[in-house]
Amino acid sequence: MKKKIHILGIDDMPFSFGDEKVDIVGVVMRGNSYIEGVLRTTITVDGKDATSALIKLIAGTRHRGQLRVAMMDGATLGGFNVVDGEEVYEKTGLPIITVTKEKPNEEKMKNALRKHFDDWKERWEIINKGGMKKVELAYPLYIKCWGIKFEEAKEVIKLSIVRGAIPEPLRIAHLIASGIKTGES
Amino acid sequence: MKKKIHILGIDDMPFSFGDEKVDIVGVVMRGNSYIEGVLRTTITVDGKDATSALIKLIAGTRHRGQLRVAMMDGATLGGFNVVDGEEVYEKTGLPIITVTKEKPNEEKMKNALRKHFDDWKERWEIINKGGMKKVELAYPLYIKCWGIKFEEAKEVIKLSIVRGAIPEPLRIAHLIASGIKTGES
Repeated sequence: MKKKIHILGIDDMPFSFGDEKVDIVGVVMRGNSYIEGVLRTTITVDGKDATSALIKLIAGTRHRGQLRVAMMDGATLGGFNVVDGEEVYEKTGLPIITVTKEKPNEEKMKNALRKHFDDWKERWEIINKGGMKKVELAYPLYIKCWGIKFEEAKEVIKLSIVRGAIPEPLRIAHLIASGIKTGES
Repeated sequence: MKKKIHILGIDDMPFSFGDEKVDIVGVVMRGNSYIEGVLRTTITVDGKDATSALIKLIAGTRHRGQLRVAMMDGATLGGFNVVDGEEVYEKTGLPIITVTKEKPNEEKMKNALRKHFDDWKERWEIINKGGMKKVELAYPLYIKCWGIKFEEAKEVIKLSIVRGAIPEPLRIAHLIASGIKTGES
């Protein structure tokens, strides 16, 4: 795999209790170092528009032609606004990888959904799409992927890490999202 | 000079006619590649609070101990909110470099100030502080500096460029500022 593939890293800004909307940050990176562009869109906290917002963000960016894969930190943005990775891949043609450092506590998440949402079953079904696998790199990571084979996804994650456990596009999307919202990341 | 010195790159977000406030983005970078953090503060469009806002931003960041120099694209932020580089250096101890690709058209700027501001002389005096010098690198750049010798400032600029004319901390601060404000940089 080429080291300098274009990767889109996605993260959400922090939000407070009572916020209706939350901004999503996208970072377009070549490999693990050169930043090509920064994207932003807005979704509803705990809403149901994260999947369509990501599809629009990916399809609409001038970087679309160069992008080879998108990465997210888990399956939700803006609280429990669930991202359907399968649908994002089908509608944009861009492979999606979700990466988390901690193994999600499924029982806890299911209970939280059930407590807060009438449509919890629908959200839970989307969260459960795809099979999660553990990747052993410098640190263990838990990933899901659509439109890309597991072994390739592992290669992408490996080439995108500079230090620590987190791929650069995700690390930088997080720094921007938290720095812009709170004043310092 | 060490290649991996910590540099703060500063840029303002785009703003529209009628906006009262504008956000300023700071990027803390090690050398020309690794991003350590993202900062944000807010100033008044065409106001007089850019100098104090930068002093507060620099003095208040947890990265202050590592920072060796700050860079700005020119002497103004948020329209004609003039930054007094000398004062920022005196109050924070952090050397400041302003870098522009085009030689500023002084006559044009003076006329614009005179037209729009009663206190234009005061602003003009601050803009005129320091001696501008031309630096011949891959592309010519026009710089001013406080708290750092011209030859050292030239070295800092040189080590901070990856490609093209613009130092990475400024290029990335600009990508973040425009991407977050407009949706795509």
